[in-house]
Amino acid sequence: MVPPCFTRGDLIFIPVMAQLDLTTEQWLTGIRNGDRVLLSRAITLIESAVPAHREQALALLSACYPLSGSAMRIGITGSPGAGKSTTIESLGLQMLADNKKLAVLAVDPSSRISKGSILGDKTRMQQLSREASVFIRPTASGEHVGGVAAATRETIILLEAAGFDTILIETVGVGQGETAIYDMTDLFILLLIPGAGDELQGIKRGIMELADIILINKCDGDNVERAKLAAAEVRRAIHLFQSKTSEWPVCVELISGLEGRGIPELRHQIDKYFELTKHNGYLESNRIRQRESWFQDQLHYAILRSVSEHPQYHEWLKSAEADIQTGQLLPSLAVHTLLKKLF
Amino acid sequence: MVPPCFTRGDLIFIPVMAQLDLTTEQWLTGIRNGDRVLLSRAITLIESAVPAHREQALALLSACYPLSGSAMRIGITGSPGAGKSTTIESLGLQMLADNKKLAVLAVDPSSRISKGSILGDKTRMQQLSREASVFIRPTASGEHVGGVAAATRETIILLEAAGFDTILIETVGVGQGETAIYDMTDLFILLLIPGAGDELQGIKRGIMELADIILINKCDGDNVERAKLAAAEVRRAIHLFQSKTSEWPVCVELISGLEGRGIPELRHQIDKYFELTKHNGYLESNRIRQRESWFQDQLHYAILRSVSEHPQYHEWLKSAEADIQTGQLLPSLAVHTLLKKLF
Repeated sequence: MVPPCFTRGDLIFIPVMAQLDLTTEQWLTGIRNGDRVLLSRAITLIESAVPAHREQALALLSACYPLSGSAMRIGITGSPGAGKSTTIESLGLQMLADNKKLAVLAVDPSSRISKGSILGDKTRMQQLSREASVFIRPTASGEHVGGVAAATRETIILLEAAGFDTILIETVGVGQGETAIYDMTDLFILLLIPGAGDELQGIKRGIMELADIILINKCDGDNVERAKLAAAEVRRAIHLFQSKTSEWPVCVELISGLEGRGIPELRHQIDKYFELTKHNGYLESNRIRQRESWFQDQLHYAILRSVSEHPQYHEWLKSAEADIQTGQLLPSLAVHTLLKKLF
Repeated sequence: MVPPCFTRGDLIFIPVMAQLDLTTEQWLTGIRNGDRVLLSRAITLIESAVPAHREQALALLSACYPLSGSAMRIGITGSPGAGKSTTIESLGLQMLADNKKLAVLAVDPSSRISKGSILGDKTRMQQLSREASVFIRPTASGEHVGGVAAATRETIILLEAAGFDTILIETVGVGQGETAIYDMTDLFILLLIPGAGDELQGIKRGIMELADIILINKCDGDNVERAKLAAAEVRRAIHLFQSKTSEWPVCVELISGLEGRGIPELRHQIDKYFELTKHNGYLESNRIRQRESWFQDQLHYAILRSVSEHPQYHEWLKSAEADIQTGQLLPSLAVHTLLKKLF
C-alpha cells in the first residue's frame, strides 16, 4: 500500500509516519524487485537525521550490505564548463544500449536542499533522463549524520542491492568533493578542456594525480589541434608521477561530448581497467581500504558532530576564532580552554 | 640556577620538578637572551603530555606569541636519497655567512622518541652542526597532546621569540608529513633527483603542486644533461597547473648539493618570493589562514584523543575494524553502535 505522498522529480515527499509503516523485509523486497519509488524513498530515508529514520535506515542498509559490492563504481570530475553532463550523457546512453543497469549520482559536499540542485541534473542530461531504465539522483542534502560523503556511500549500497551494475558519480562542487569521490569509487575520470594557449583550463591542485583516465573534451571543430596539443602535454606530465598502485597506466583520451566521439574508446579503457584490477587484486584490496576509511571518516565526523552539539560550543568557537584571526590568541591555548569547557 | 641534569645532543633531560622551578618570566627572559639550554628545555617542555607541563608550556607560549611571526618559515621535502641534508647544509652555511639567525627543524609525523632520530640529523649535517650560531632540532616526539604538527607549530613560536629570523623545516617522513609542513610554512621547496630514464624519481602524489620552488639536485658530473632534461620536463608539467594564489611563478632550479652550486640562485629566488608575497599581502593572509587551520586541526585532534581515552574505546574499535575489513559489518552501523556506547 502506497501512502499519500507528493512527488518532485525523482524525489518522493511523504509524511514522516508513513515511512515507518514498512518493515525492513518489505523495503528490501521492493528494492530488489525494481520498485523505483521505494528506492527513492529509501535514499531519502538514509539522508534523514531523525533518529527513528536512522534506526530504520541502518536496518535496511545492513540487510542490503551482503547484496552489495558488484557494480563498477566510476567517479567523474572536471571544472565547471568542462562538459561533464554532456559526457556523462553520451557515455550513459552507450552503456544503456549495451544493457548496463546504470545509475548516476551527483555529489556536492557543500550542498543544501535547494531547487537548483534537485532540478539541475535532469535539465542538463535531458536525453539520458528520458531513458526509463536509468536512475539519476541529485546530490544528498547536508543533513546526514555522517555528512554528504557517508550518504553517498550508503546510497551506493542501496543501488547495488537494487541491481544496478554501473554507478557513475559526478562531483559538481568545489573544495574536497573530488577526494571524497576518489575514496568511494573504483575508477576516477578527470575531464579537461584546452584553455587559451596550449595549457588546460583549471586543473585543481592534486586532482590530476588522482585520475586513472584523463579526457580532453571539445576535440571538435576549430579546437581539434589545440585539444591534441593539450593531450600531448598531459601525457608528458603524467610520465613524471609515481606509478599507480593499481599498476594501471594512466591514459589520456580525446573526446567530443558534442559530437559523441571518443566514447567507445573510453568504454574500452574502462573495461580494460576493470579487467586489470580484478585480475591483479587491486579492486578488492582498494575496496577494503575504502571501507576502513569510510569507518574512520564517519566515526570522526560523528564524534566531532556530537561534541559540537554542546549548547555553547558554537558561541565558544566563534569567540576563539575571532581572536585567533587577529593574532591575539594562541591557537593551542584556545584549544586547551575549549576542551576544558567541553569535558 | 641550572638544576642537576644530563644531556644527549641537543636535548637536556632534567628531573621533572626542576622544570617547574622557573617562572614564565624567567623562561621568557632566558629565551630572549639567547640561552640555548633554556630554549631546548622549553621545546622539550612543550612536547610533554604531563598536565602540569602543558599548563606551564601554554603560559610560556602565550607570552612568546606576541613576539613571534617575523621569521621566514621555509619547508623542504624530497624523497629519501634526494640529498636534503646536503642541500640544507649548503643553504644553511651560506645563510649563516650572511648573518642570518638560522634554526633547522626536522618533522616526522610518525616519529617516536628514538636514538636514531635524535642523532640522525647532526650526523648528516656535520659541518652545519659545528656552527655555534645555528640551532638544529630533530623531530618532536609523538607525545604532544596535539600531535607532532602542533608541537612543531609551537616550536616555531619559541624560536621566533628567541630571535631566529630563518627557520628551515625538513620533512623526513612519509605519509602526510609534507602537507603538515606546507600548512605551517611560508615557502615550500621540493627536492628531486633524476631517475633512470628522463623521469624523476618518486614524486609523491600531490606534492609537486604544493611546491613554490622545485630543485633538481645532483646536477654534477655525468648527471648534468639528465638533470637539465628533468628540469625541462618539470617546467612543462608545472605549466599545466593552476597558478598559485600567491601569484608566485613556480620556478625550477638546478643545484648540486655536492659541489655547492646553484645555492646563490636558490637564495635569490627565496628572497624574491618573500619580497613578492610581502608586497601583495599573501604572506600575511596565508599566516592568518594557517593559524585558523592550526586551531581547527588541533581542536579536532584533541577532541578525538579525549574521546579515545575511554577505557574500552580501543577494544571496541579493534573489534569493529576486524568485521569491517571482512565486509561483514556495515561501517555506518559500526559508527552508530560505537557512538551509542561512547555517549
